[in-house]
Amino acid sequence: MDREKAICLVSGGLDSCVTAAIAAARHERLAFLHVNYGQRTERRELSAFREIAAHYGVRETLILEMPHIRCIGGSALTDPDIPVPENALGEEGIPVTYVPFRNAHLLAAAVSWAEVIGAGVIYIGATEVDSSGYPDCRAEFFRAFERAAEAGTRPETRVRVAAPVLHMGKADVVRRGVELGAPLHLTWSCYQGESEACGACDSCLLRLKGFREAGVPDPIPYREG
Amino acid sequence: MDREKAICLVSGGLDSCVTAAIAAARHERLAFLHVNYGQRTERRELSAFREIAAHYGVRETLILEMPHIRCIGGSALTDPDIPVPENALGEEGIPVTYVPFRNAHLLAAAVSWAEVIGAGVIYIGATEVDSSGYPDCRAEFFRAFERAAEAGTRPETRVRVAAPVLHMGKADVVRRGVELGAPLHLTWSCYQGESEACGACDSCLLRLKGFREAGVPDPIPYREG
Repeated sequence: MDREKAICLVSGGLDSCVTAAIAAARHERLAFLHVNYGQRTERRELSAFREIAAHYGVRETLILEMPHIRCIGGSALTDPDIPVPENALGEEGIPVTYVPFRNAHLLAAAVSWAEVIGAGVIYIGATEVDSSGYPDCRAEFFRAFERAAEAGTRPETRVRVAAPVLHMGKADVVRRGVELGAPLHLTWSCYQGESEACGACDSCLLRLKGFREAGVPDPIPYREG
Repeated sequence: MDREKAICLVSGGLDSCVTAAIAAARHERLAFLHVNYGQRTERRELSAFREIAAHYGVRETLILEMPHIRCIGGSALTDPDIPVPENALGEEGIPVTYVPFRNAHLLAAAVSWAEVIGAGVIYIGATEVDSSGYPDCRAEFFRAFERAAEAGTRPETRVRVAAPVLHMGKADVVRRGVELGAPLHLTWSCYQGESEACGACDSCLLRLKGFREAGVPDPIPYREG
């Protein structure tokens, strides 16, 4: 086991849960960070975060409010006037659910917290494959952000960014989660619902496809329709 | 005049006011961004921001709340339990007023907003000279952050970071401000006071030294002592 303290960015979704499971298999000392930024299913994601943290016995947790991301706007995920598209997975270009430069805000918070608590690595559950082409979910961005963190923090601070599911398709993420005993039943992915997943938004469609391809039943409830 | 829209990060202090004056001399289209992050003199800085924006007739303004920076902690500037030092300017190392990786949060917000409103350059009033050795106030960090912004935003988004007072001492900042007719009487620098500046904190000492060396009277009120 790695003695280095690791911060996991845990949204409460499938990818971040499996990323946390990977970090838990490698590191003795874990700290979990969750960010509320006015996303539509903020409360539901927060309760998933708390349950996943409890599952792994992580006591060093930080929940941050970033209402400013919603104020900046520019995304269907945070602006109620921009509808969340359904069945838009095949469309080209960057989707309207892209929150401009969002991961920079999450990583900046993680790097600041890493400086305060002495963590050396940040795990983020970003995925390039099967994902929506968000520019802030690419290895090139994470490497560039690592260099910015190196240049912009105390000389003794060294923080790496680990994105272990970045090159996995959703089915691989599900398989890896099952292998590691990740609590997939505690995760939440839907952009629309809070008690039952809608099964129709981009995020649900990707998730369902992943479970189907992995040959594993999705343990969360879906709206009948 | 440059047709490109410029975002200025305006805290309300001397450096950001002169930086805004420089941007105003170069760009027809300006947008001003202010961030409240739980700094001790938050309200005073915000009123300075509003007055400076009014002075330049800037209508595109955004005021963001970033309470999360205070929650992360680690700085005398945001944690009431860590005293703000007085007369610590000669001390070595990074001072306790350093807010871990703070400028990354401010720049992330500015880059997100630049993507939404179509700005191509962000002005930040950071200064290396006479400053306190904050690692996130160095050219190396701004160049690295520019590359992260390039990698983490839409392909069509291009955002530069301009820090025109970075290599100026405080006296040069004052002189440049006077040359450009910057409203220095509207600025606020003190870490302690809100109606009168304390004249004793690091920020006041630097400011007073700058005005003295420039041979210009500081137009703001100081506590008698």
